[in-house]
This record gives sequence, structure tokens and C-alpha cells, in this order.
Amino acid sequence: MWQDYPELAKQLTTTLYLMEDVVKLKNKKVEHAVLEMIHAGGKLLRPAYQLLFAEFGPEQDQKKATSLAAAIEMLHTATLIHDDIVDDSTLRRGLPTIRSTFGNDTAVYAGDYLFICCFKLLSDYATSLRSLQLNSRSMEKILDGELGQMDDRYRTDQTIEDYLENISGKTAELFSLSCFAGAFESGSSERFAKKAGEIGHNIGIAFQIMDDLLDYQADAATLGKPVLEDVRQGVYSLPLIYALKKDPARLLPYLEKKDQMSDADTAAVQQLVIELGGAAFTQDLAADYTKKALKDIRKLPTNERGTKEKLERLTSQILTRRS
Amino acid sequence: MWQDYPELAKQLTTTLYLMEDVVKLKNKKVEHAVLEMIHAGGKLLRPAYQLLFAEFGPEQDQKKATSLAAAIEMLHTATLIHDDIVDDSTLRRGLPTIRSTFGNDTAVYAGDYLFICCFKLLSDYATSLRSLQLNSRSMEKILDGELGQMDDRYRTDQTIEDYLENISGKTAELFSLSCFAGAFESGSSERFAKKAGEIGHNIGIAFQIMDDLLDYQADAATLGKPVLEDVRQGVYSLPLIYALKKDPARLLPYLEKKDQMSDADTAAVQQLVIELGGAAFTQDLAADYTKKALKDIRKLPTNERGTKEKLERLTSQILTRRS
Repeated sequence: MWQDYPELAKQLTTTLYLMEDVVKLKNKKVEHAVLEMIHAGGKLLRPAYQLLFAEFGPEQDQKKATSLAAAIEMLHTATLIHDDIVDDSTLRRGLPTIRSTFGNDTAVYAGDYLFICCFKLLSDYATSLRSLQLNSRSMEKILDGELGQMDDRYRTDQTIEDYLENISGKTAELFSLSCFAGAFESGSSERFAKKAGEIGHNIGIAFQIMDDLLDYQADAATLGKPVLEDVRQGVYSLPLIYALKKDPARLLPYLEKKDQMSDADTAAVQQLVIELGGAAFTQDLAADYTKKALKDIRKLPTNERGTKEKLERLTSQILTRRS
Repeated sequence: MWQDYPELAKQLTTTLYLMEDVVKLKNKKVEHAVLEMIHAGGKLLRPAYQLLFAEFGPEQDQKKATSLAAAIEMLHTATLIHDDIVDDSTLRRGLPTIRSTFGNDTAVYAGDYLFICCFKLLSDYATSLRSLQLNSRSMEKILDGELGQMDDRYRTDQTIEDYLENISGKTAELFSLSCFAGAFESGSSERFAKKAGEIGHNIGIAFQIMDDLLDYQADAATLGKPVLEDVRQGVYSLPLIYALKKDPARLLPYLEKKDQMSDADTAAVQQLVIELGGAAFTQDLAADYTKKALKDIRKLPTNERGTKEKLERLTSQILTRRS
């Protein structure tokens, strides 16, 4: 994915090294679990955006930029490990989750440990307490989004607004923080950094909507996890929320089975959601947010490193992905 | 407990208010769970030590001191909530644990939320990034201690050194941080603050040893949780480690049953440990650490508020408690 961005690819490799480097535990079992999770390799989108926005500022400090990128990715990884406990997930990034391999107890502490590593990197490399304040506000919003989603489980009366509020927290906030922190910590004005944060917010919303759409388009092998497993766990995303509004009578009999839904039931729901236009509507909404983000990216200043063009290309690329 | 320390009692009440005030979640179920846990009222020893050591510094800022005390108590509460998941605990402070009332999923996020609240208070009220760096190092040590204890579960070959290393992290570190931060954040020199941290370390070790001793002396009603429940979960503390060394043959048949130990088994283990001198040895070691702490407290400077005398009285009091 990063081969078209050679400079960024190098920085992301450094970011991964820094993440590995900071993980040091006497308990080797947990250390191994955490390192394996880091290696399993997420897309590293959040650090990528952070590093790109860091190219705009007057202060170019590679060690600092990659360390703060590592902090953000650690925070992201921490939330994934804890989310997998909450969702009873068995697969993540095509590998068994920490909770399924080592148990919930190890997963609780492994996630806590990555929170602490994030905190450690932030306090070592951020410029000011102001950054840490903003970071902690973001963390609070992320958790509030996750809690919102947990609270809305199995609720068939969710609105599109509820959905957008939850993903604003659980996904968009960290994209927003990445872009904000990249700009702010490289010495850009808080005003510019806020604009960067807005762009990140729209990218994050579009990204999560696309992610939720893909659940309705892919099969288990492609996704690396069971199809509509989330629906069985009571997490209803936009395509289903839309379809439920259109024709509740056809969908409710399946959803009322809650976690007792069979694979045939989830397949039927997948089919119905597409028939009722849930996927098409979702695709359109993702396109709207993508357009908004791209429009704002095009207004950014140009520089010698072609940062603006890289941002435009990357954003188009990830928001038109098919898997 | 705090009636003999009227000024401190007032500050601790403020600390509790501040803790309540910072907890603001859309998810009212989790908000309620967290507030209930705060209300259930721990002893507030860590904030008490922090507030007392804050009396030594040249900068007397009540709002700051109580806010940082609230941060430390929030961190403590967060670790308790997650420990209860790891240990499958049903009771805490005489009340059902969050995990037993609301499930592991809520407990994971509730603990995470309190970590974030701690971080928020720290970044809002600490004087410098240096404080946050030290804080994150402490958090790492705490987690390493907890992980160490988890890793040593059901290990019958644990040494007294292993035990001391684990409690240094899981308990003493936070007492140490409280005393350090109290001194440092009120403008005392880092040298003085480190001395305060050492005193806190010894108090913390003595406190945990006493806590572990009480498990062998009290009954379920007094403790607010089942007797030797920890042993059933594989957590072997000093009295048992000592007794195991003295006469493994008598103890091992019980311990080999692991989590299948009956109430009669745990009662037998309790009896055996006392017979073999485990409780007496433990009492002596706690007394050693208490003496060390008191000796160093007596060397502290005197002031008009009688801080030194309060520290001496409080420390004697909690380390000779019977429940």
C-alpha cells in the first residue's frame, strides 16, 4: 500500500520500530502478544496522516514526528485490544485476537499497557501540556463513542444521527487527532491545526462508513473475519439502520434472534439490506464525506514535498477501496 | 478514619467532589457504575499522603493539590476495576464489582475511562511535562507488577523476592508516586520529592504486606470479600509463600486443586499457614518496613501545620490496623 509513497513508507517503518522499542515487559507472554499484534500490521493510516500533516509545519524533527505517530498508533492498538474483549471477537487482522489466544485477563492488561506506552511517548515527545490536554479530550471522545455503540447494541430504533455520533467518537476522533497533532506539533498555528483536524474528521467518518459498507459486500475470506459477525453481536451500522427504516417488517424477524442468528440468517440480512438500498445509500454518504475532505485538502498550501498532492492521492485511494 | 485530621478530611472531601465532577459520560449506565465505585469509598490513603506531602512545598495551591490527588485516586480506581476482571472478583469494598454487576465489557471501558480521567486531570493541573513523564513511568511499573502477579499465578516455587518485586509494582509504586507528586508539584526540590517517594514506597510495601496478612486473620464478613479467594485464583502472598517453604508437603495437596479448592480446603490452608509461622513472619516484615518509613518521616522538616506529626500518626495508625 505504501510503495507509491517512498518517503512516508520509510517513516512508517521507523514508527513501527519505535513502537516495538517502547514495549518492554518482564512478562514475556504479554510482551509477545503485544508485539505480535503490532506486527500483524494495521494499515497505519493514522500515523500516515499525522506524518503528512507534520510536513506543513516550520519545525521538522523526524524523531519527534515518528515518536508521536507511534503514540497514536499505540492508542489505536490499545482500543482494538479492548474492543475485542467487549465484542468477544475471535479474529483481527486475519489473526486470532489476544483475548482468544491468551484470555480476557491478558487482553485487559495488554491494552492498558499500550495506553501507558502511548502516554509515555506523548509525555516524552510532545511540546507542551496543551497537546496532552487535547489528547486526553480526544481519548475521552473516543471512549464515549465506543460506549455509545455498546449502549446501542441490539437497538433497532437507532437513527442515522446516532450512528454518525458514535463513529464520530470511535473512529473519526482519532483521525482528527492525528491530523491535528501532526500539524500542531510541527509548529503550525492552532488555527491551521484545527483545519487539519476537521479534514481528519471527515476522512475518519468516510473511512468508517466505507468499512461498514464492506461488511455488506465481502465474504469471510476477504475480510479476515466472519461476515456480519457484528450484527450478531448487536452492532448495527449504517446500511442496516437505513434498511431497517425502509422495511422493518422484513428485517426484524432475523434481528430479534439477537446472538442466536444462524449464518443463514446473517446471509439473509446481508441480502435484504442490499435489496432495500442500504448499501447504495451508504456508498453515497461516504462519497459526500470524501468529497468534503478532498475539497478542503485542495485548499491547503502547496510545498516542495508535494504534501498536498500526497494527501489528495492517499485520501482518494483509501476511500475508494474495495476491501 | 479521617476525623482526627480535620483539615485533611476537608481536602479529601473536595478530592471526591472533583473525581465526581470529572466523570461525564453520555452512557449513563457506565457513568453510574463509575460513580458508585467512587462513592463506595476506598480509604483514600494515596490522596491523603499526596496532600500531606504537598504541605511541604513553597507553592500552596489547593485546587491544584486536590485535583492531582483526584487524578491519583482515579488511577487507583481504574486499576481496581481492571484487576477485578482479571481476578474474576465478585466483591470489592463490600459491594458487587462492576464486572459482576454490568459484565466484563462495561468494566473494561469503565476502567479505561478512569485512566483517561486521570490523564485529563494530570495534563490540566500538573506543572510540567516532567511530572507526566514520571507519572507514565510509574504507571508502567504498576502494570508490570500486576502482570508479574498474573504470571506467577499457581506458581508454588515463588520466592519472597518475587513477592516483594510484584508488590513493589502493584502497590508500593502508587504510594511512592503519591508522595513524590505531592512534594514535587508543590514546588519542593526533586531531591526532596525523591525522598518522599522512598517513604511512600516503604509505606506501600508495609501496607500491602499487612493487607495480605489480614487475609489470613479475618473472616469473610469482616473483609467484605471471601477469605483466601485469592489463593483459589492462584495468587499466593507472603504468608503462604513462607509457609510453603517451611513445609510444602502439607500444603501442596490443597494447592494442587487450584480453582477447584473447596471452602474447607481454603480454611485448612489458612490454619496451616498460621501454624507454620507464615502470619508471624509476615507481621515482622511489615513491622520492618513500617519502622523504616517512620524513621525517615521523623527526619522530615517540621512546619507550623504539623505535617510531620500527622504523617507519623497516620502511618502508625494504618500499619497497625486490624481490619
